[in-house]
Order: sequence, then C-alpha cells, then structure tokens
Amino acid sequence: MPGTPPTRFVYLGPEGTFSEQALRTVPAAEHGTRTPARSVPEALDAVRSGEADAALVPLENSIGGAVGVTLDELAEGEPLVITREVILPVDFVLGARPGTTLASVRSVAAHPQASTQCRQWLRTYLPDAVVVDVLSNGAAATGAATGEYDAAICAPIGATRHRLAVLADKLGDHPDAVTRFALVSRPGPPPPPTGDDVTTLAVYIAHDRVGALLSVLMELAVRGVNLTRIESRPTGEALGRYVFVLDCTGHVADVRLGEALQGLRRVCADVRFLGSYPRHRWATSAAGDRPVPAPVGLSDSDYADAAAWLARLRRGE
Amino acid sequence: MPGTPPTRFVYLGPEGTFSEQALRTVPAAEHGTRTPARSVPEALDAVRSGEADAALVPLENSIGGAVGVTLDELAEGEPLVITREVILPVDFVLGARPGTTLASVRSVAAHPQASTQCRQWLRTYLPDAVVVDVLSNGAAATGAATGEYDAAICAPIGATRHRLAVLADKLGDHPDAVTRFALVSRPGPPPPPTGDDVTTLAVYIAHDRVGALLSVLMELAVRGVNLTRIESRPTGEALGRYVFVLDCTGHVADVRLGEALQGLRRVCADVRFLGSYPRHRWATSAAGDRPVPAPVGLSDSDYADAAAWLARLRRGE
Amino acid sequence: MPGTPPTRFVYLGPEGTFSEQALRTVPAAEHGTRTPARSVPEALDAVRSGEADAALVPLENSIGGAVGVTLDELAEGEPLVITREVILPVDFVLGARPGTTLASVRSVAAHPQASTQCRQWLRTYLPDAVVVDVLSNGAAATGAATGEYDAAICAPIGATRHRLAVLADKLGDHPDAVTRFALVSRPGPPPPPTGDDVTTLAVYIAHDRVGALLSVLMELAVRGVNLTRIESRPTGEALGRYVFVLDCTGHVADVRLGEALQGLRRVCADVRFLGSYPRHRWATSAAGDRPVPAPVGLSDSDYADAAAWLARLRRGE
Amino acid sequence: MPGTPPTRFVYLGPEGTFSEQALRTVPAAEHGTRTPARSVPEALDAVRSGEADAALVPLENSIGGAVGVTLDELAEGEPLVITREVILPVDFVLGARPGTTLASVRSVAAHPQASTQCRQWLRTYLPDAVVVDVLSNGAAATGAATGEYDAAICAPIGATRHRLAVLADKLGDHPDAVTRFALVSRPGPPPPPTGDDVTTLAVYIAHDRVGALLSVLMELAVRGVNLTRIESRPTGEALGRYVFVLDCTGHVADVRLGEALQGLRRVCADVRFLGSYPRHRWATSAAGDRPVPAPVGLSDSDYADAAAWLARLRRGE
Repeated sequence: MPGTPPTRFVYLGPEGTFSEQALRTVPAAEHGTRTPARSVPEALDAVRSGEADAALVPLENSIGGAVGVTLDELAEGEPLVITREVILPVDFVLGARPGTTLASVRSVAAHPQASTQCRQWLRTYLPDAVVVDVLSNGAAATGAATGEYDAAICAPIGATRHRLAVLADKLGDHPDAVTRFALVSRPGPPPPPTGDDVTTLAVYIAHDRVGALLSVLMELAVRGVNLTRIESRPTGEALGRYVFVLDCTGHVADVRLGEALQGLRRVCADVRFLGSYPRHRWATSAAGDRPVPAPVGLSDSDYADAAAWLARLRRGE
Repeated sequence: MPGTPPTRFVYLGPEGTFSEQALRTVPAAEHGTRTPARSVPEALDAVRSGEADAALVPLENSIGGAVGVTLDELAEGEPLVITREVILPVDFVLGARPGTTLASVRSVAAHPQASTQCRQWLRTYLPDAVVVDVLSNGAAATGAATGEYDAAICAPIGATRHRLAVLADKLGDHPDAVTRFALVSRPGPPPPPTGDDVTTLAVYIAHDRVGALLSVLMELAVRGVNLTRIESRPTGEALGRYVFVLDCTGHVADVRLGEALQGLRRVCADVRFLGSYPRHRWATSAAGDRPVPAPVGLSDSDYADAAAWLARLRRGE
Repeated sequence: MPGTPPTRFVYLGPEGTFSEQALRTVPAAEHGTRTPARSVPEALDAVRSGEADAALVPLENSIGGAVGVTLDELAEGEPLVITREVILPVDFVLGARPGTTLASVRSVAAHPQASTQCRQWLRTYLPDAVVVDVLSNGAAATGAATGEYDAAICAPIGATRHRLAVLADKLGDHPDAVTRFALVSRPGPPPPPTGDDVTTLAVYIAHDRVGALLSVLMELAVRGVNLTRIESRPTGEALGRYVFVLDCTGHVADVRLGEALQGLRRVCADVRFLGSYPRHRWATSAAGDRPVPAPVGLSDSDYADAAAWLARLRRGE
Repeated sequence: MPGTPPTRFVYLGPEGTFSEQALRTVPAAEHGTRTPARSVPEALDAVRSGEADAALVPLENSIGGAVGVTLDELAEGEPLVITREVILPVDFVLGARPGTTLASVRSVAAHPQASTQCRQWLRTYLPDAVVVDVLSNGAAATGAATGEYDAAICAPIGATRHRLAVLADKLGDHPDAVTRFALVSRPGPPPPPTGDDVTTLAVYIAHDRVGALLSVLMELAVRGVNLTRIESRPTGEALGRYVFVLDCTGHVADVRLGEALQGLRRVCADVRFLGSYPRHRWATSAAGDRPVPAPVGLSDSDYADAAAWLARLRRGE
C-alpha cells in the first residue's frame, strides 16, 4: 500500500559488501528484513514482483563512475522510482583469519575494481603478494575466511561478517572515495520536498534532430534547473543510440522543476521520471554541491506572481 | 463597460488621412462617431480619459518603419491595449482642384515622407514642379483645395473629402507599401483567439545583465513562440536605455504563449502586455507571414498532455 | 585618398541646427569647409559622389529614438562607414529678436519633436502662446528672426547664427537628453582600436528560418560580444521584413569581434559593416556604458593561446 | 618516428577475445607483432613507454555502454591519441571440446556481461546448465579447453585458438550488438581528413559555473559541430566532479571544428584532444550515423569566404 513504510528490503549481495553496509544506514531497514540478491536486476525484479518493498543498489562511484546495469534497469523495464540516496565512504580494509600477520600474506583476493583502487597501498605494503581477481568484495572475504587466500580486500562489514581480523584499513588511494546508492521502490508519492532535493530522469531524444541534446539542456537552463550529472547509456538499438540519465537539483513538486519536466516531456521522444528525493549531505561533500537557491525570478513565489499576472491579463484586468 | 462594443472612435487626424481611411474599414466605426485628433498622444489620451472608446493610430509603415510616438505612448503612461490591427495599402494619389491638368502643375504640397516615397513618380511626371513640405497628408490636400498649391500628394480619402480631382494614382515607388494601424482601447478581455493572432509586448530588461536580450529571446524560443518584430525605443533615462516592443505570434489565451509571458515576467525588469488580436491578412501578405502551426510538442494539447503527466507524477501514479 | 584627413564636411542643415553644432566639436572640421545639406540622403550622397569627404548626420536621440532615414541610408545604397560618433546634449533655448520679453511672446515656432520635448516648460512659462509646427529647428530660428513668429525653440547655435536673444535655456523636460551623431565617410581603413570602441552593423536575416534572430544573438554571445543596441528597419520589400542595425562593443580589429563578424557573415543572408570607431564618453554617460573588459577566455591573448594550441594539435605535437 | 607505420601492436588480452579479433582487421597489424596485455592500463602504458607502437582497446559496447577504464586512461595520465576506430559485431559462440553435444552440456563458463547478453539463448537451449562467472571471454574458452567446464561462451577467435568446436553461434539476444574499439598511439600528426571523421575530446568544465555544460554545447552548436556521444567520467576528486568525453563529427583539420576546439579551449577549465580519425562504417550502421554535410554557412569554403571578407574590412576595402 502506498504510504506504508517498507519492511522487506533487498540489496545487491552477497552479504558483507558495501551495499549491505549502505542499507544499514537506512533506519527502517534496521527493523525490517534484509535479503541479498545475486545481481542488480534480481534485486530490482524482487521489488517489481512485490516480493520486496525496496531495493538498495549502487548508482555510481566517485572513482569508477556510473554503475551501468543499475541505470539501464531503471531506464528500461517495469518502472521504479528512487526514494532515497545513500552516500557511503569506500573504506577498504585488509581482512584475514585471526592470527595472520601482514608479513605472512602471500595471496590477496580482491575484486578487480578494489585492487585497482588500492594499487598504491599494495605496492607499498605487499609488493610481493599475488593479487587474485574474484567476482565481488564479498567473495574476497569468503575466500579469506575459507583459507583459499591469505587475505582479502573487502568492506568493513565483510570482515565483520566473516570474522576476519582487520590487518589494515583505509587502503584506497583516494581517501575521499565514496559510492552513491539508491533505495528503489515501486512508483508512489515521492517523499516531501526538503529544499535540497535531487530529481533523476531518463531522457530519450530524437536522434534525427540536430541539437536535440542542446534543446534538452535549454529546457532546464531557462527554468534555472541545475544539471548535476548526465550519463549516456546505450539503448541497445544500435551503436550511437543513447538514453540520457540526468540528475537535476530540485523536486518534482517545485514549480520550476515541474515546468522543466513538462518541457522535456514535450520536446523529447520520451522521459521517464526516476524519483525526487532528499540530497544526502556527507562530510566530504564538494563545495559546489551546496543547496543552490532558486535564481532570480525562478522561486516558487516568482512563479506564483507570474501566474497571477497572466490570469489577470487573460481576464482583461 | 467591458464587453460593450465601442461606439465613440478617435483617429490620428486631420480628416482625410490614411488613419481615417483605415478606421473606415472597422465595421463598428461605421455606426459610431469618428473624431480626428491632432496627435497620437491626444488620440490615446481621449481613450484613457473615457472621452472615446477606441483610437485608431499608426504603428508602422513598410517603408518608413515604426511610428515611434505610438510605441512610446503604449509602452509608457496609463495602460492601453491593442484590440485589432488594420493593414492598409499606402496608395498615394495626386489631387488637385477640378479642371487642373497635370501639365499645369507647378507646385505640389506633400508631407516629406510622402514626397520621399513618390520620388520616382515626381521625377518622371513633374520634374519641374516645386515640392513644398507640409506637416501631414491632410494638410497637403487642404492646401490644394484652398489653391495655395496647385496639387497635393494625399490619401484617396483626402481627395474625396476636399473634392479634389485625382490626376494620378499609385504614385508610390513601392506599389506594395502598406501601413499598419492599431485600434487601441482601455484594458479589457482580449478578443477571442482565432488561431492566427498577434500579441504585442513592451519589455524592459535589466541593463546591467550581459545577454539579457538573448535570454528574452530564449524564453520565447523554448516555447516555440515566434518573434515577428522587435523595436527598440529609448526610455528617456539615458542614451542606450531601451524598452523593446515585440510582436509575437499567438494569443495570451494560448498555453505556450502564456508560459512564455510568465517567463518574461520573471526574468525581465518589467513586461507590459499590449494586447492579443487577430492577424490582419491582406492581399500582398509576405509568404513568411502565413499562420505557423505550433511546433512539435508545443500545441495546446501537447501542453495538456504534459500537465496531466506531471500531475500523475506528483500523485505518485 | 585613404589616410588623408577629411577637409570638406557636409552636415544635416539648415545652418543653426544641432547637427552643425555637433560638427563643430570635430577638430578637423574647424579647419575645413562646412556645408549644410537639405536632407540626410543629400548629405550622404555628397560623400558618395566625392563632393565631400565626410558627413555629420544624426543617428539617434535619447528621447525620440533612432533616426530612421540615416539607418536606412547606411544599410542600403552605396556603402559608407562611420568613423566617429559625437554625443551632444540637446539643450533647447528660446530665441527671439533682441528686445522681446518673455511676457510678450504670443507665438512660438518649433519643430514638433522640439515642442514635444519642451511641453512642460511651455505649459509653465508660455501657457497661452500658440505653438506653430515648422519643419526644422533651423527653420524655427529663421521664422523668429524674420518676425514671422515672436520666438523659436532652437539650438544655441541657431540663436547665435540668427542673432536672436536667448530668453531662456534648458527648456527640455529631460535635462540629460542627448543626440548621437555619426561622422560618415567612404570606406577606408577604420580608426585604430582604443580599447573602448563601437562597431555598427546592418544584418539581414533569412526570414523563413525560425529563430534566425536568436542565432544572430548567439553568434555574438558565444564570443562575448555585447550588443548595446538593436534597431529594426523595414527593407521595403513587405511589412514584416526588417534589416537589423546593431551596435556592438569592440573593434573590427579585435579577434573576438572578428570571429563574431565571420559567424554573422556565414549565418546571415547578408551583413554590412558600418564602421568601428571610438566610443564617445560624455559627462552623463550611463553607468552600464562603461568599457567592459573581455569576458574570461575571450581576450585577444586567450584567442592567441587557443590558436597556438590548435596549431600544435594539427601538427601532432 | 612520426609517420612511420606502427609495427608493434598490443591489445587487451587474453588471447582469443574480441580485442584480438578487432586487431586482426587492421591491415598493418597482420605484418606486425601482436601482444596481449593483462589490462587496458597495461596496454596503454606499453605504448606510452615506447615498448609498443599502438594499442587496441575497447571504447564502448552497444549493449554495455562505455568502457570506463579506457576513457579514464585516455583522459588522464601521459597523453595518447586515437588514430583509428574499429567496430566489430559481438558474435558470441558456444565453444566446447570436440565431441561434446549440446545435450550433454551441464556447465557453461562465461564473463558476466556475456551471459547477460545471451540470457535468452541460455534459457531456451540450456535451461538446466549452471552458468559460472569467469573474468574474461578468453578465460571462459580456456576453462572449456581444459575441461574445467563443459562449454564456454566466447568470441569466434577464442574457439579457434583453443581448438573448440562451435556448438552454436549468434547466441546474443541483440543480433546487431557491436563493440567499438580504438587504436591508440603516442601523439603525432592525425590521419588525413576523409570527409567523414570523428574527433574525440576530454573536456573539463568549471563546476562553479552554472550552465557550464550548456555553454560547451553552444560552442559546438554555433559552429554546426554535431555531438554524437557524451560520457561523464568521475575525475576522482569528489562525487559530482566529472570529465566529459565527447565524440564530435569532423576532423581537427576542418575549419569549423578548429574554431569550435578553440572555443572550448577558451571557455573550459581544460580540453584534451584525443584524436581525429575516419569513421568506421559497417553493415548495420544506424541511419542517423550517415556523414552529415556541413550546415549552410559552415563549410570550409564558407569559412574561407568569411575570413577573406573580414580581411577586406580590416584593410578598409
């Protein structure tokens, strides 16, 4: 039922990855069920089918970029909406069975993205260890727990879950690295505006129209809507055919964002609304990400004034 | 009373000019009173004070350009609105007292703009006549009627009124020359949309904002509103300070023009609505002046569809 | 010969008008001949034919707006260029034959624009006098000198020339009113850039292209060229067909203005260059008219850097 | 030495993947050495260090989207340029040791992206087989060759290399799926323009400037440069900080693209040129990807005309 808080949560598994850790920051999830899914599509399908109320999946990483499969799933298939974003520092740790010393580590299991992000640390502290690619951070922790490998690069929650000792933490070359996750539900009324919100859209443009992307940006700019992110995802039809996934500042309930949305709806081949939700502020937020007040002439009250003026004109007053 | 058809008309005099001739094309004026005014401000002040219901004044001429005083009066002072436009061919005739022959004409009275527009004809047919500047086409006809001058360049109605014989017609170098007049009333409900309407605006922009005029044009372009004319008129504050008088295609009751108007209201220092009224089609209308259908995505039904879609999004459907 | 300073000057007559007064502010004109012309076309034709080296004609007035005939003459016909602008305060005086007192004035000769601009003063000081329309400020002074009228509203130089006593000065309702004049020559090398220049253009756009005017403004905006004035002048072909006369900040020798000019040349039906010349600064210049430094990335050295970079790319360095 | 054709090639390994297959379509590579690299960074570093002359790496896939690591490597680090693009159909085959029948297949090794793209085929023909994730298409083929798995989803070249029998081909759900590869070299003169070229750029914008991305698109649009692709890649500084990787139509030697590049250089925080190279046309190219003639006014000859005109203006002719 719309309005009922979600109680059955699913997240991108396996257990012990950053996705589970991100889900634990959502208060409602502490009191609900939390089930790992084998993949992003599986997590989202669980929500679509009604098996789960909400899914926690990664959207983008400040080092690795967009998580294509999540964007593709949101842009295509049965519609879903984002109701919350979670920004989580990517704090890699080196986990090993209790008793292992750093000096004795000869093999390290790691997801390739994880080992790439910890290259500097590995060169410095484990120059002679063999790094073995595995398919997830959770799988790395499992491999260390079973003794298949001497150690694992994993999330703190992965070490905890598998009762690994943390031999070192903050392994990442970029100490400020974060991952942005989305909590996704079936369509329903969006959370109320907070004054500092994000709206995510999937926009399909007519490819035979020159300057079509420019006109999308103009629809936003004329209403003072700030575009904070744009991702191109292939539509699968042909090389060179993209759907654009946009993050804008503002909430669907804001007048100017509403007008911009209507403009996109009119000029684009298709627009899919992927949710309005509060911006997650975190310690190392970039300065440019501060909430931006509506530009001159574009606040809700400016809109109300202009609408009242137009109504007077139409009545001939 | 709003809605009551006007019965008391005033026009830019004196009698016997093109303004009177233009007023005679307005059906209601045939049954009402028609009073000449000495100047455009006087004509408009008669409407403002309630002495007259409507004034017929010139807006622009296809040869001489904008009639500055009319634009200035509409942009400043007590508000008025245009309810109708009249396009009239500028058909200059040579009038003289009956019995005069072309060969005997030695002096011709003419308003300087009239003699400029008939330069070719005068050189060909009256190369030796002295052309005397007078202050209006009506004054020229009067001068010929009183015998002060042998002939006058004037409007057909001027020859009729002063019982002058027409020695020659179609004197103008530009046979397609026309003047555009406006019928102006006190503010009231605009005439209903016809599908081929014009809206006139006076727009004040913030001069300390670089690109302010560009953003005005973008507000229109994003809504597919076509700008057919732009005139700069000095505000009188200082050299380089202008108010822009714009003609746009569309009616204030159209959704997209309404949205564009609201946009201008928000981004401009001030906007004055000067009326929505049917476009006057005439024989020699330029091809480009054909009624332009709303661009893709910008018809009223596209707007209605987009508004309904937004409402569904906001309700979470 | 190009480069030879002009010695034979012509100006919009008759003698004793503001045009003559403006010409007297041009140093070279003090040592040359100064001949009045009967009209703007006549003045410019004298330059075209080689009879005169330069003509001084009015461009616009801060109250009355553009002088259409000057713009039309510059945009059409044999090309000419502006080499200098002169801004002159419009200081109307009341001239009368010596011995006349203000109290005895019963009739005042005035050009209609002059009497309009002095309405307030006339109501206050000469509420009972008859104001008679004449065809120029110079003709008004002549009429007062011959005794046809008791007094004349005219330029200071008109009173001097006709030996009139000045009964009152600063008659204008707008004490800061100015007129802007152009000194016009046959095409030749423009005066050197000063860092605070104006460039005037006549731009013909394709009327069948929607948004053609917007694309003109974008060509300028992308190069950071500021548009200080835009005038629509009818081309005479048909109502709704205009040539736009633009004033831009900058000099044809500036890199970014050069690039913008090339852009206009490519996208417009036609562009006529009407001169680059130093901006005339005067006492009451509006604040916004201060010389504007080139926007970030658009100075000549930014252009030079970008051109050098491109050359390196093309050589594969 | 610049100009010397490359002879030592490296490609994203292992052997038997689509990258090797793509490299085999490059004529020069047939006569040179072809060495697999363990990763994209390793391949590109081999070129940077001079060990190899050129590297063949994937850029994007019509199903999976951009290959982030390639874009990141090109946008950061020691500069490299693309000299050629190769578009290769993604034709997955099912390889198994000779003698294996489809009915006997119980386990299939596949890279997760490969199994995702063959989901439909797997459901239909091997509904009961276990699909095991491995780290590359080449690793899958190896696993089938060693007997670790019964079969592998791999590239045709992978089956050939490991002497696998092809039990089925065209396994992909999207029969038109292609991957786009780049041949990358150290900076040098670009290949000559062909009239149908692509230019790739990495653009860094000032994040504190509202509408910065819009102004990038305007720099392109004003010069009629078509943007065919835009990818956002994180800069690693912070979430929300992106570098944009753009594909444009045209060649750095084209005048209008040169002017657009200079414009980007001036308005952006930084621009890195990543090469101009002939567009690869292939059988199923989308209609919209046809070579687009320069828009009216933007051909090289239009530019030459405008430059000559400007030069005449500056000389005063």
